[in-house]
Amino acid sequence: MESSIVFTISRLSLSPSSKPQALPFQPWKHRTPPPQPPTRVHCHKMYVPGHGASPEKTAAKHLHHFFNFVAVKIVAAQLQSYNPEAYEELMEFVERHPLNDGDKFCADLMRESSRHQKLALRIMEVRSAYCKEDFEWDNLKKVASKMMDESNTRLLRNYIMETSCLDKVK
Amino acid sequence: MESSIVFTISRLSLSPSSKPQALPFQPWKHRTPPPQPPTRVHCHKMYVPGHGASPEKTAAKHLHHFFNFVAVKIVAAQLQSYNPEAYEELMEFVERHPLNDGDKFCADLMRESSRHQKLALRIMEVRSAYCKEDFEWDNLKKVASKMMDESNTRLLRNYIMETSCLDKVK
Repeated sequence: MESSIVFTISRLSLSPSSKPQALPFQPWKHRTPPPQPPTRVHCHKMYVPGHGASPEKTAAKHLHHFFNFVAVKIVAAQLQSYNPEAYEELMEFVERHPLNDGDKFCADLMRESSRHQKLALRIMEVRSAYCKEDFEWDNLKKVASKMMDESNTRLLRNYIMETSCLDKVK
Repeated sequence: MESSIVFTISRLSLSPSSKPQALPFQPWKHRTPPPQPPTRVHCHKMYVPGHGASPEKTAAKHLHHFFNFVAVKIVAAQLQSYNPEAYEELMEFVERHPLNDGDKFCADLMRESSRHQKLALRIMEVRSAYCKEDFEWDNLKKVASKMMDESNTRLLRNYIMETSCLDKVK
């Protein structure tokens, strides 16, 4: 059983007025220095345009919904063993309500019935504990960095193999 | 302009054989100790069932696509100021190709033309640098924790206000 968690983020909203503040990659075609204030001297980070919220906040928002999803799984697994009735109620609710918006899911669950309200409170407690205690944040960074290296290597390798084959055919 | 980044994750795949290993929340209805091996004694984490990959790996996968999206924004902003032709080409490609799968986006971009290939290599370089150097991982944890507290408080406050109003009407 698969579920889609949809995260909507603004897409390349580069308004004409947005000013790139750093060009650390291959700055060919050098022009005369543009008439910009020298504020970028002390910032070594790449300029991310068009983000109303910081990238960190956007990422945290995505993770927020993910933690809610994980909390529902945790609570469901706990209930399955010692409270089958509550488990069935939760699963029936999950079937009817998408998990892509964690807060809306909890708000709806809370208003379904007094029994569902208890489930919602428990999910909220679990998602908070999971976010603050159980989730391995350091590991997340390691896994993401490793994934990035592997993906870049795989993309390049596949491309080189593909073009090499084409050359041979020619 | 809005774009949906769709992350598909398995949904509550609780097989009957899955064994909840920790019940840290309100363990009412205590039964006699189940005949399980005492392996859970040393694990204080909540049991997350049905995850083929670890939650950290699933979250890293989501972030991987997000970093690709951010890299496209960064590169586009850089090009906009000193290479308008390349900027136009990139934006035209973005219009035709979704950004929900970062690796597929780069693979397709690489195969579009030799000019697009250079753009793809640059995006791959930027997304790697962004993930490892620019993205504020410590801040991500702080923002996510704060967001969790605020969301839970807001959900409870709204519910209490709603039910209080209903009581007054009665």
